Amino acid sequence: MEFKVNSKVLEKLLSKIIPAVPTRTPMPILENFLFDIKDGAMYVSATDLEIALRSSINIASDENLKMVIPARLLYDIIRSLGETQITFNADGGSKLKITTDTGVYNIGYSSYEDFPEIPAVSKDKEIVINGLDLKKAIDQTSFAMSKEDMRPAMTGTLFEFTPDGLRFVATDGHRLVKYINKNIKSATEEQYIIPERAISVLSKLLDDADVKIYLSKSNVSFHLGDIEFVSRLIAEKYPAYSSVIPLENENKLFVNRDVLNSTIKRMMLFSSSSSKQVKFSISNNNLEVSAEDIDHGSDAVENIECKYDAEAMDIGFNTAYVNDILNHVDDESVVFKLHSPTKACIIEPETVKETEELMLLLMPVRLNN
Amino acid sequence: MEFKVNSKVLEKLLSKIIPAVPTRTPMPILENFLFDIKDGAMYVSATDLEIALRSSINIASDENLKMVIPARLLYDIIRSLGETQITFNADGGSKLKITTDTGVYNIGYSSYEDFPEIPAVSKDKEIVINGLDLKKAIDQTSFAMSKEDMRPAMTGTLFEFTPDGLRFVATDGHRLVKYINKNIKSATEEQYIIPERAISVLSKLLDDADVKIYLSKSNVSFHLGDIEFVSRLIAEKYPAYSSVIPLENENKLFVNRDVLNSTIKRMMLFSSSSSKQVKFSISNNNLEVSAEDIDHGSDAVENIECKYDAEAMDIGFNTAYVNDILNHVDDESVVFKLHSPTKACIIEPETVKETEELMLLLMPVRLNN
Repeated sequence: MEFKVNSKVLEKLLSKIIPAVPTRTPMPILENFLFDIKDGAMYVSATDLEIALRSSINIASDENLKMVIPARLLYDIIRSLGETQITFNADGGSKLKITTDTGVYNIGYSSYEDFPEIPAVSKDKEIVINGLDLKKAIDQTSFAMSKEDMRPAMTGTLFEFTPDGLRFVATDGHRLVKYINKNIKSATEEQYIIPERAISVLSKLLDDADVKIYLSKSNVSFHLGDIEFVSRLIAEKYPAYSSVIPLENENKLFVNRDVLNSTIKRMMLFSSSSSKQVKFSISNNNLEVSAEDIDHGSDAVENIECKYDAEAMDIGFNTAYVNDILNHVDDESVVFKLHSPTKACIIEPETVKETEELMLLLMPVRLNN
Repeated sequence: MEFKVNSKVLEKLLSKIIPAVPTRTPMPILENFLFDIKDGAMYVSATDLEIALRSSINIASDENLKMVIPARLLYDIIRSLGETQITFNADGGSKLKITTDTGVYNIGYSSYEDFPEIPAVSKDKEIVINGLDLKKAIDQTSFAMSKEDMRPAMTGTLFEFTPDGLRFVATDGHRLVKYINKNIKSATEEQYIIPERAISVLSKLLDDADVKIYLSKSNVSFHLGDIEFVSRLIAEKYPAYSSVIPLENENKLFVNRDVLNSTIKRMMLFSSSSSKQVKFSISNNNLEVSAEDIDHGSDAVENIECKYDAEAMDIGFNTAYVNDILNHVDDESVVFKLHSPTKACIIEPETVKETEELMLLLMPVRLNN
């Protein structure tokens, strides 16, 4: 069979699917695209068994054919071509022949029978969310996912449907982020945990267009325009995170986010590699931030204006975690809600918004005095 | 003692010197800047024992002092500050105190006695060359330096002073580049070999300003405005490269550089990882370029228009080397001067220039038919 396609159209299509191709895998078949030419359309898909991507374009072809083509080789050839007409020829044998005005390329292809089936997700339950809203939600929470496999649930991001809104939660035990999109209300309460790799690929695919989400017990499917993105879910129970969020943190510290983060970046140069500790000494509208590297005999202290009229307090944090958190609060001013040097601290943007809510929780570290 | 300096002025100074600070070294003292405050000037230098950088700014200080300060820590602090006045205080003890409007930073510093002396290079012989001319010369040749230590001379770039001009030569045995700047004529013939690390740091320092070069038996010193850059020389004899350059290559192939390089980039996807081979089949104004990956059962062939009226020839090259060479010929059209499939090929820009000359030599590889 033979069909023709514009190089730039094909490049665009393949660029959407390539993120699902694993870079290292013990299953060589996964290093391929599945091409499924059927009734005038060409469906291209790829999977690493955890996530899968599929998209299609219309092509003029009388025959149907499935084939499995080395993904990176094909993608690299296509994108190295200028804009040109490409003819694919797969008549018999195990070679795909690609022809342009000036070149002929033969690529071995494999049988499609070994290519894993991409799970079909029932469309019974559909949620529609704007792509940028979803992107914001996962970008503001996903950094706090656990990198350790000890508790698999915490290696993903929780999507929690509630009557009040759609909650996104991530935690690694040291810090926790909860973001609520109040526009997406759900009659029932349901929890789904999306794995880290799906979150990171999804974030790059999202744009201003609406996204349709379909959920089953074991899989989630995102429809983004002409792209379908499927991921398995983490089949675990998410920790009962609400119970760790303190309610009685009455001591409020208001501080300019960029000023504090600039200070924190310098403190990261000083906080010793073993403790990674930064100390906040708060009193009377003044925040003294200090760090010490005992191994190298260096230390730093800076004073920042703030708003704070509660009791004076010294509290220690992991410097990198404070930096992470400040990078994810999208407000000029942040509030630290404190109770005591040993209790969890709540960090929030000062501005309260109508349609969304962001809360970050950070566990303090014991100060080494 | 105490002195003040503007943070941006200091950042600019340190940014010039930091390239000489080694990232990994068995000698911790080399991870420092040497600060030498003397008679109203502050000299900052760094060295990795192979190269050294030194520059200075004027400061108001009555006292003289030498100290050795952790380079990366200081540089990272200074560049993380906005524009501000910084006060350095080194009164007694082993701590340098740095104060800004909002912060105080204490850094341990070491005794300068252990810091290696930077070699002084006699100014008897001075060569002046425009910075961009020097940059062009080393950028067009240095890629061909050998990465292997077997023959130390070939790990550097040769600066050869001759009555006809200043020659820059690099070779790794498979390919050779010779670039001549005809403006820099020398009465005597002299050879100096500059090590790879010096070449790569130097290239980044060069701009439109004139550079003064001083040479001794063992060291070279480049004066670039207020920066002094010193490097040791490779104390070896450079191979007699002229004898390998063929003179009788009469078969000339003229081809558009970008068109050929675009083809070569695609061939790199096909030329098998073991042979890395590309085949040129040349006849009658047509260049057929082909590559084959036997392991993966893929192959590619492209036809390119060219100017060639000599006898038909098949010749093989290392694909990556052809790509390297084409990236370093600054002309729209290149000439391949050929003799036979087993003899060195000469590649040159088609346009002959009055003040410079570029010649690249590439050894062919035996075709596996």
